[in-house]
Amino acid sequence: MHTDLQEVKVFAPATVANLGCGYDVLGLAIYGPGDEVVIRKAPLLDQIVVTEITGDEGKLPLDASKNTASIAAQAVLDQLGISGGFQMEIHKQMPFGSGLGSSAASAVGGAFAMNELLGSPLSRHDLLHAAMKGEEAASKAWHADNVAPGLLGGICLVRDNPTLDVISIPAPADLWATVLYDPRIEILTAEARLKVPTEVSTHTATTQAGHLAALVSAFYTEDFDLMKRSIVDHIAEPGRRELIPSFDEFQSRALEAGAFSFGISGSGPSLFALAHGELAAHNIASAFQDEPLDAYVSKVNTQGVVRLA
Amino acid sequence: MHTDLQEVKVFAPATVANLGCGYDVLGLAIYGPGDEVVIRKAPLLDQIVVTEITGDEGKLPLDASKNTASIAAQAVLDQLGISGGFQMEIHKQMPFGSGLGSSAASAVGGAFAMNELLGSPLSRHDLLHAAMKGEEAASKAWHADNVAPGLLGGICLVRDNPTLDVISIPAPADLWATVLYDPRIEILTAEARLKVPTEVSTHTATTQAGHLAALVSAFYTEDFDLMKRSIVDHIAEPGRRELIPSFDEFQSRALEAGAFSFGISGSGPSLFALAHGELAAHNIASAFQDEPLDAYVSKVNTQGVVRLA
Repeated sequence: MHTDLQEVKVFAPATVANLGCGYDVLGLAIYGPGDEVVIRKAPLLDQIVVTEITGDEGKLPLDASKNTASIAAQAVLDQLGISGGFQMEIHKQMPFGSGLGSSAASAVGGAFAMNELLGSPLSRHDLLHAAMKGEEAASKAWHADNVAPGLLGGICLVRDNPTLDVISIPAPADLWATVLYDPRIEILTAEARLKVPTEVSTHTATTQAGHLAALVSAFYTEDFDLMKRSIVDHIAEPGRRELIPSFDEFQSRALEAGAFSFGISGSGPSLFALAHGELAAHNIASAFQDEPLDAYVSKVNTQGVVRLA
Repeated sequence: MHTDLQEVKVFAPATVANLGCGYDVLGLAIYGPGDEVVIRKAPLLDQIVVTEITGDEGKLPLDASKNTASIAAQAVLDQLGISGGFQMEIHKQMPFGSGLGSSAASAVGGAFAMNELLGSPLSRHDLLHAAMKGEEAASKAWHADNVAPGLLGGICLVRDNPTLDVISIPAPADLWATVLYDPRIEILTAEARLKVPTEVSTHTATTQAGHLAALVSAFYTEDFDLMKRSIVDHIAEPGRRELIPSFDEFQSRALEAGAFSFGISGSGPSLFALAHGELAAHNIASAFQDEPLDAYVSKVNTQGVVRLA
């Protein structure tokens, strides 16, 4: 142990992955929803014990060997070659299974909290692998487009998932997201995966690559018109929108209310609209106030996970 | 006619398209090889007449309705609703069928020269469509990754080929290219096309998109190490390298001499190495001085086509 700290509390934000044309490789963090994770030293224990989970409707495992947050925290210990006893609490402040990176928030919170408790021996970038170990346990996949923005903040491009080569892309200050979650819709990850083709035409592949690269360029130059033209997904959205009955209607409504882009967050059911400026983002949320949806209005969260105590 | 100008002479540079992971969508212009195009007013004529072509080994058509440069020049007249009589000369100062955008250089030269002769009523961006009409006649395809950098200079990303939505990406001042052309190798475009799969896995598509977006990010941040990691092509190069017998050996030699990347220019047979700085670029060329190759060492040509007289 490197510090006299006895306990830390962190907050890991929700994230929007598969951002438009960035299927599997582009995500951003938002303010508002997320996971609070507490870790405290427990000298009488010799392992991590999850003592409490709230806000999960009883769906998350207390078994530390199966819990995303504790697996990520354990991976930090493993990376540092440290053992010890710890108690962990997880307080979910975001919907579960919503397509907003719930498991990534837990994993990021667990890894970051453990590193803070140990005196921050690892950088945020160094924690990517540990957080991904937690995310992998929940999602059965190795895609960092939720974990990376949750940990690093802002907009993250995953150049290469296997090696976790993650590039931070500058987030325009006026870029806002309006995220809509309909708790009545459940999307099974397996079903969502089946909606994505296993092969695409080379023409589609090169078009998607051109769009993603143009979107990244637009983030650098804060060219909102280019963002609008670029953020078009030819790979996942065409199939996945079928899983969301109101997609077409909601898309029209969001665009009319001022969104320049509208799409599925992660594998859904949450939807996101992007807007130029706070006013437009709130206008978009207002356009859905008669629907039984949770709406989050946020600029890009450039902090990522933060320490609360 | 808008000016008293009687004649203009322009020089349109060679270009490297399909730049690594940017198959069909990314290209850059180089200094050195290119096409000189002369257009003069000919009041006794009522159309464009190609009077002279040099440096083409007799391979290019003098028939103005079939010549890439004159078709592009005519497209400028059509775009402006102008008719008139013109004489055109084309002096090729670059190898033909080399994968260095020979037809694009002619098309860009033809369009730009006509616009200059008319007093520059159109911007360079406005000339993209006319130049593409010429390029299309030669290449039977509508890919702007040679024409765009030839016309605009620098590094160009084609977000969308059909609408010619072209984004200029900043070229790092220390980015140099060494281009190698082996005149003994002939690659038929049709054969090169057959080497590119018509479908790719979605995994390959998203990987390629991530690489291209990361490469564009690296151009903005001048991160040469990220350029090196990103400029990997999973779509065209795996098949096309088979058409170039020495590809593997030349690649090793270029990387050993200091290249951070090596690939096929356009559909070949020209090869390009990218390097950080002029010294490395010349070192790479030196490593091939015992081969019967034409070598061009150039930083990125940020001017594009220029007026000579």
